[in-house]
Amino acid sequence: MVGGGPGAFIGAVHRMAARLDDRFELVAACLSSDPERSRTAALDLHIAPERAYGNFREMASTEPGKADGIDVVSIVTPNHLHYAVAKAFLEAGINVMCEKPLTTTLQDALDLVEVARRRRLIFGLAHNYTGYPMVRQARQMLAEREIGDVRVVQVEYTQEWLATPIEKTGQKQAVWRTDPLQSGPAGCLGDIGSHAFNLACFVTGLKCQEVAADLSTIVPNRRVDDNVQVLLRFESGARGMLWTSQVAVGNQNNLRLRIYGDRAGIEWSQEEPDCLWFSALGKPPMMIHRSGPAANAAAAHASRLPAGHPEGYIEAFAQLYSDLAEQICARQAARPADSSALLLPDIRDGVEGMRFISAALESSQRNSAWISVT
Amino acid sequence: MVGGGPGAFIGAVHRMAARLDDRFELVAACLSSDPERSRTAALDLHIAPERAYGNFREMASTEPGKADGIDVVSIVTPNHLHYAVAKAFLEAGINVMCEKPLTTTLQDALDLVEVARRRRLIFGLAHNYTGYPMVRQARQMLAEREIGDVRVVQVEYTQEWLATPIEKTGQKQAVWRTDPLQSGPAGCLGDIGSHAFNLACFVTGLKCQEVAADLSTIVPNRRVDDNVQVLLRFESGARGMLWTSQVAVGNQNNLRLRIYGDRAGIEWSQEEPDCLWFSALGKPPMMIHRSGPAANAAAAHASRLPAGHPEGYIEAFAQLYSDLAEQICARQAARPADSSALLLPDIRDGVEGMRFISAALESSQRNSAWISVT
Amino acid sequence: MVGGGPGAFIGAVHRMAARLDDRFELVAACLSSDPERSRTAALDLHIAPERAYGNFREMASTEPGKADGIDVVSIVTPNHLHYAVAKAFLEAGINVMCEKPLTTTLQDALDLVEVARRRRLIFGLAHNYTGYPMVRQARQMLAEREIGDVRVVQVEYTQEWLATPIEKTGQKQAVWRTDPLQSGPAGCLGDIGSHAFNLACFVTGLKCQEVAADLSTIVPNRRVDDNVQVLLRFESGARGMLWTSQVAVGNQNNLRLRIYGDRAGIEWSQEEPDCLWFSALGKPPMMIHRSGPAANAAAAHASRLPAGHPEGYIEAFAQLYSDLAEQICARQAARPADSSALLLPDIRDGVEGMRFISAALESSQRNSAWISVT
Amino acid sequence: MVGGGPGAFIGAVHRMAARLDDRFELVAACLSSDPERSRTAALDLHIAPERAYGNFREMASTEPGKADGIDVVSIVTPNHLHYAVAKAFLEAGINVMCEKPLTTTLQDALDLVEVARRRRLIFGLAHNYTGYPMVRQARQMLAEREIGDVRVVQVEYTQEWLATPIEKTGQKQAVWRTDPLQSGPAGCLGDIGSHAFNLACFVTGLKCQEVAADLSTIVPNRRVDDNVQVLLRFESGARGMLWTSQVAVGNQNNLRLRIYGDRAGIEWSQEEPDCLWFSALGKPPMMIHRSGPAANAAAAHASRLPAGHPEGYIEAFAQLYSDLAEQICARQAARPADSSALLLPDIRDGVEGMRFISAALESSQRNSAWISVT
Repeated sequence: MVGGGPGAFIGAVHRMAARLDDRFELVAACLSSDPERSRTAALDLHIAPERAYGNFREMASTEPGKADGIDVVSIVTPNHLHYAVAKAFLEAGINVMCEKPLTTTLQDALDLVEVARRRRLIFGLAHNYTGYPMVRQARQMLAEREIGDVRVVQVEYTQEWLATPIEKTGQKQAVWRTDPLQSGPAGCLGDIGSHAFNLACFVTGLKCQEVAADLSTIVPNRRVDDNVQVLLRFESGARGMLWTSQVAVGNQNNLRLRIYGDRAGIEWSQEEPDCLWFSALGKPPMMIHRSGPAANAAAAHASRLPAGHPEGYIEAFAQLYSDLAEQICARQAARPADSSALLLPDIRDGVEGMRFISAALESSQRNSAWISVT
Repeated sequence: MVGGGPGAFIGAVHRMAARLDDRFELVAACLSSDPERSRTAALDLHIAPERAYGNFREMASTEPGKADGIDVVSIVTPNHLHYAVAKAFLEAGINVMCEKPLTTTLQDALDLVEVARRRRLIFGLAHNYTGYPMVRQARQMLAEREIGDVRVVQVEYTQEWLATPIEKTGQKQAVWRTDPLQSGPAGCLGDIGSHAFNLACFVTGLKCQEVAADLSTIVPNRRVDDNVQVLLRFESGARGMLWTSQVAVGNQNNLRLRIYGDRAGIEWSQEEPDCLWFSALGKPPMMIHRSGPAANAAAAHASRLPAGHPEGYIEAFAQLYSDLAEQICARQAARPADSSALLLPDIRDGVEGMRFISAALESSQRNSAWISVT
Repeated sequence: MVGGGPGAFIGAVHRMAARLDDRFELVAACLSSDPERSRTAALDLHIAPERAYGNFREMASTEPGKADGIDVVSIVTPNHLHYAVAKAFLEAGINVMCEKPLTTTLQDALDLVEVARRRRLIFGLAHNYTGYPMVRQARQMLAEREIGDVRVVQVEYTQEWLATPIEKTGQKQAVWRTDPLQSGPAGCLGDIGSHAFNLACFVTGLKCQEVAADLSTIVPNRRVDDNVQVLLRFESGARGMLWTSQVAVGNQNNLRLRIYGDRAGIEWSQEEPDCLWFSALGKPPMMIHRSGPAANAAAAHASRLPAGHPEGYIEAFAQLYSDLAEQICARQAARPADSSALLLPDIRDGVEGMRFISAALESSQRNSAWISVT
Repeated sequence: MVGGGPGAFIGAVHRMAARLDDRFELVAACLSSDPERSRTAALDLHIAPERAYGNFREMASTEPGKADGIDVVSIVTPNHLHYAVAKAFLEAGINVMCEKPLTTTLQDALDLVEVARRRRLIFGLAHNYTGYPMVRQARQMLAEREIGDVRVVQVEYTQEWLATPIEKTGQKQAVWRTDPLQSGPAGCLGDIGSHAFNLACFVTGLKCQEVAADLSTIVPNRRVDDNVQVLLRFESGARGMLWTSQVAVGNQNNLRLRIYGDRAGIEWSQEEPDCLWFSALGKPPMMIHRSGPAANAAAAHASRLPAGHPEGYIEAFAQLYSDLAEQICARQAARPADSSALLLPDIRDGVEGMRFISAALESSQRNSAWISVT
């Protein structure tokens, strides 16, 4: 693991997620950009002292030489470091699980694609919401045409935690996320809007063709956007909207997707992840539960418990790690991986996300003109 | 009443609404454009034969001469007739309650404003969703700054009933609503999008400055839009989105409003009209019930029953008629009307609605360019 | 109308309900036990002075002699007067719509049955919750065996308004409802528990065989029960529970019914009356909307509006009056009434309710021993 | 771990729960009553061969002699084995985490209490629902008198999975749970009713004084109860009801608790575990989220993630293991344990559960007579 030291949020989540299904052990880490804090933090996590690295380049150069060297590195640093860290480990021949957004520029993203391709490595991207069973259920239902031709896609991801200028108080999460040097030029758009975009594409299997975006900075003096509204046009002709905000008071982590086709409509909300509303034309709406009647194979693959026993954020995140483990084991055994495990978002999804962010930024600079995503 | 004969939907609603609070009696009508059907239908409603008119002009010219002539006419015809009917009754000195949209062109709308002003008549517009107690509650809360400065307004009004080309089957409601000659150039946008726009403006008290719209005709060969996505910018700087659709399978009559300010966020849904979610910054979300704790004077004015005894669509509609009755009585008694009754939407709201429709149509024709609403 | 003067709640509801569907006109009344207040109140409701009666016996003796005498009397007095008023009007040959509970003793109830039978009159009982479309839907579904054999019936009706001793403050509704001389020996049990019992029987069509009840008086010094828990055994072998309370803080008017059979389970809640949850064995739960897909004929009979346009308490109450109108018209025309209109609860339901109340009171006095209801 | 081999449900849950917070490692096991299957299963879990035991007595006698012997044994066998296994490990000086019900007879339960007391060992009981943050939140709110004096307690735990005689199909979970020799004399009552009872007592801190129960066997020829309705009286005078069923079609794992006091009411549902409804007298209901505003210290202790990031069943279960770890560490370090960790249900809760089961069985045999629980 690189990043994820004291005070970080997502690093601890990655560790729980990797542990839950008993497929990974954390054996080496560089948890902080400060070498001393990095080593101390690693020892707290029971990592052997010689694998508690002071900087990530040392880790990338050392681990490949070990008999029990790491199979994969988790990159959980602030955004601006993703590129350098990922490149170092890829060049060292190590698989990667990287936080999103992939990089802070499309250029860097494309460079990583090239490296990963050349080294033939597995590159998972932590679009963790795709790990939810009912998201997978929805994807399969779309693929099997239960919704029919998609006509409208409405997606939103809203939070409230930046409704006041808490970055001024030194809150660590807020400080780096509102600093363009660490987060990149996109604020809310990159931090959570990219998840919303990814989710819509993951479930529908559609390509977004162009966007018309209106980015706002609601809180005075904030240096990045904190509220973003986007019109979407898909290659298939479907239309959509994406709203993402970090100033929507009363919204905790409201990622919500609604898709309407000519046969049915579906609705899923991250805060009630175990159920999926499905409304077929001319039939009453039904609520499909994870592991309940009408749950499909994709949902089953990502479930651990019977219906009525809630699974949540950690379990969905763990699914990405389980899928990653399956891919690594399959490659090591030179066998094809279980096809369900191939749903793990990868570097191509990262590039798509970067294209979306770039296009939305450009559109907003051009007063919401339609800008191509492809 | 003009319009609202056999097979009509909204005419019967107006009659129940007018009757509920015992402030009006239906005594004269021209219920159909076919004189014979008009008279027959009127007799079925126990209207005296001499006031069962065969055409609306005759009614407009006859009623003013009666000692017990009508106080107000309800106009519930297809959209393209609103202008001519309203003008005839206004010129005859009769108050009007008119269905929305006010007219089919902005030009006509402005003309009616002139006539109504000149004749000093009351002109209510049936933006019936403003009659819901919790919509009034929200409006008062906004006015009293409980939400603070409005930052974001998300409104949607979605239905499913036009997901298939049912106008081809001769379904009467669908036929006229998808015929530009009867409904005007806007389809879904005018039919229900105008309600959504009105609701957002009614509750926030904000003026919309410009819109960027993407109108779609999803069902092949339909002659009007059936899915509309709009970005909104308000004069205050607030941003918003409006989505309206009549092809959203699984949505019955989903009118939903969310408003976020720097102090709080609120959420209201027409299908659960008796409650309002209110989330103040740093406090848990609370659900305010009509007639329950924290219900305010505006809600009380529009309520008939204690909390837990659901009120619905007819009651909200009835509120418009009760407010209209109060305005008429006040004018007849030469006293000021109860200020709560002044919330009845009027011809100015109708003009605002026409401006919104015009701007959205133009924006969509210009590939979603921002177009001024004012 | 007898009862329902100033300060009363249910009288005004009856008037709105009778008016909504345009089947009744209020032409005579004795609205208060105080003759002067009675007459004044009647004039306020535009009743002709000669039919603004000072006492109900005068009204019962006068009305039958009029050419346009009343077709039906609505009895909305406190409970202890139901018997005398109903008897007077029945003996005068006038149909009755009576509030529940039918009387305050089983003896009186049986006497009314005898009079009504002898005079061959229509006697509607205001178990108004049976007027909800989705309650009717559920009843039909049960009758058509969509739930299969009923196994378990859980019903509850809970409120919070008596959580404090507000009868001490003089609040009129609370004063008479907590006074055994006016309400009868049962408090919460008779006031709302009887509705819950009726609803369970109405929907299932089952007879309750015996009850084991635990009545409590939670608020000190209150003179009647305010929280009641009852075990139910039905003749068919089905088991159930009934909970009714007026001290359940946070509950407004929470009447809720759940029924489980060997084929399916259903759930309905009065505060969201337009939908019915239906879960068939091995299928996902579905939400059936009034007027939506899967709504049946019984629901359609009791609906006025399309799905998504909420109907509520007044509309359900109005259904009882519409069914009463149909029964009266049918009898006047010597034709059979529309079978849907026969769902109007009648005096036999009132007797069943009295039997339930008597049995529950006796059970509680005997430390929750099982007591026969039949 | 003893029990929890292939086909078992709860054993795998215990393993995930123990692993999630990184406080335990599974190093020894006897996973099946069949020695061979036991060893094979252990190897699949990466347990060293010499600690893959063929029977639990061997494990209990061997482990204490090891330098790295187990700190605690998890007992996840069918109910009838809890007693013998627990006794063996307690006598060997090993702490225990045991599935509920504690034993199959009250006598056995009291014997275990004696052994545990004598050996001064920690004995955790897997009433896992007490590990949910919002259950802990509710308990603290009750303790701090935010609800005031408790008046009414309504608890239910309902499932559908035994609505048909699936034990006849050989389904492993159903077979042992409906076999009195393996599950004890109580079926649904012991399996899930005991959780409901425990939850009510845990949150309120009240002692139940007596019960009046009606046990039913709904599915023909089933050998244990599958639907149970119980009236409750608490020592404080509070009243309550408990309903538990495994034939309630449409219910997955519906554990739900509602408590009403003189100051407020609360409501919690296991299927939406991250929120708690709180209704204070005279205030609108509010929804308290885990980690959101108004979340208290008890909730924080049991939370891992910010609000809006759902936690579920595994996390709640993991909390018990984390609390157990803290108690063990504290004892090893001869320091007092963190007081929050003392909320782990223990053997006394197990005895209370056995008393409840015994009393309910006796009551039902005596036609629902009130039977003392103490």
